[in-house]
Amino acid sequence: MSNRSLILISNDDGVAAQGLGVLTDLMCQLGDVIVVAPDGPRSAASCSISPLSTITIKLVREHPGLKVYQCSGTPTDCVKLALDGLLERRPDLVVSGINHGDNASVSVHYSGTVGAAFEACMKAVPAIAYSLKTRSLQCDFRPYEAEVVRIARYVLEHGLPEDVLLNVNFPEVPELKGTRVCRTGRGRWMKEMMQVGEGEYQLTGYFQNLEPEAEDTDYWALDHGYASITPIQLDMTAHDYLNSQFTIHNS
Amino acid sequence: MSNRSLILISNDDGVAAQGLGVLTDLMCQLGDVIVVAPDGPRSAASCSISPLSTITIKLVREHPGLKVYQCSGTPTDCVKLALDGLLERRPDLVVSGINHGDNASVSVHYSGTVGAAFEACMKAVPAIAYSLKTRSLQCDFRPYEAEVVRIARYVLEHGLPEDVLLNVNFPEVPELKGTRVCRTGRGRWMKEMMQVGEGEYQLTGYFQNLEPEAEDTDYWALDHGYASITPIQLDMTAHDYLNSQFTIHNS
Repeated sequence: MSNRSLILISNDDGVAAQGLGVLTDLMCQLGDVIVVAPDGPRSAASCSISPLSTITIKLVREHPGLKVYQCSGTPTDCVKLALDGLLERRPDLVVSGINHGDNASVSVHYSGTVGAAFEACMKAVPAIAYSLKTRSLQCDFRPYEAEVVRIARYVLEHGLPEDVLLNVNFPEVPELKGTRVCRTGRGRWMKEMMQVGEGEYQLTGYFQNLEPEAEDTDYWALDHGYASITPIQLDMTAHDYLNSQFTIHNS
Repeated sequence: MSNRSLILISNDDGVAAQGLGVLTDLMCQLGDVIVVAPDGPRSAASCSISPLSTITIKLVREHPGLKVYQCSGTPTDCVKLALDGLLERRPDLVVSGINHGDNASVSVHYSGTVGAAFEACMKAVPAIAYSLKTRSLQCDFRPYEAEVVRIARYVLEHGLPEDVLLNVNFPEVPELKGTRVCRTGRGRWMKEMMQVGEGEYQLTGYFQNLEPEAEDTDYWALDHGYASITPIQLDMTAHDYLNSQFTIHNS
């Protein structure tokens, strides 16, 4: 490897996903690239890991400045394996995606795309999760390419605060209206279980935005044609409640 | 079902785990109980869900005031299925655990025990995750029983703020020194991948506490013989960074 930036890529749609290929091509503009991605779809893997399985990894493609590995584990396993077993040096940036499907609002908790970026953040490597609000496995990613590169270049140059990563979402539009830096909006999934047999269910459902008028949220940005950048953090402590309202006594 | 409280229980160690049995017995003191738990171990399942699988559920035990179901899905699937397909009314409380292994510090992100409680919180049901810092599958839970019941009763009586749940951890001690209300401590897992063959790895590693002297953290409490109660929240937005330091421009 050269003195160029080293960028690690993972995702949760698997090594064959179109969004991963696009992200790989874009990151090759910025540095040397190692891809470690699941060998098939791991949608909604969250930060799950595989303590009960042997995790296998295989080099499937190699060019100057690029190596692509497929891994039997989850997105988080992929990042752990890359950082702790595979890479000869610490990467300058970890990017995940581009996910087929948004990871705004509460979906951030279920997302394997965000899970991979979280893992990098836990290991103090700057990390970005990219997702496109689409239901399609074949998309036109060209409207977002410049912004994907711009945000990655920003993080390579400026870094991120300790324990903070970026969750980036794009709306599916021919042309972005712009980019907004947002908080995570409040929402919930509804009617999620469809009975398909005796004692048999299939996940389904729809997303309900609980604050559709809030212009400072990721979901508002997506609904109005903007890309959203949401900084998220490892610490989930409810500090306000901890400091002011929590009356259960310390015995 | 009567007018008594309705309590839903899940876990990530599976329906046969000792900790689940203990928690079930304790909650039966407080109300009618429905258990929906995975049919086997789902450790480190985080908030993962199973959109690509048919999820099956089976009633495996029934007494007055108690029904126990096993489910083929993740802890989060179990809670979704209970809230959206199985229960005739909204539960007053969801509890998860008692996990064999702590879920303090960053482990909160990987935890299926916490994932189940998170799902309830997303659906606006008060929720508590209970975990014991142990490496054993057979433990003496008696030192913690009174505190498990006390915290659950507190939440049944007082509720919790919107989008906040409780993450409770116990140290493995003959007698608790007390209970501390804490923030999540900073830490990280180290040396996590052990190579076991050509391209084959097994998850392993050890936890490094990054602030061992910080007396307001969950890990400090556990290390000093106290139970920890950490309120955690759905919103992971890095508000401090969003409000003050984030210079990437809105275009």
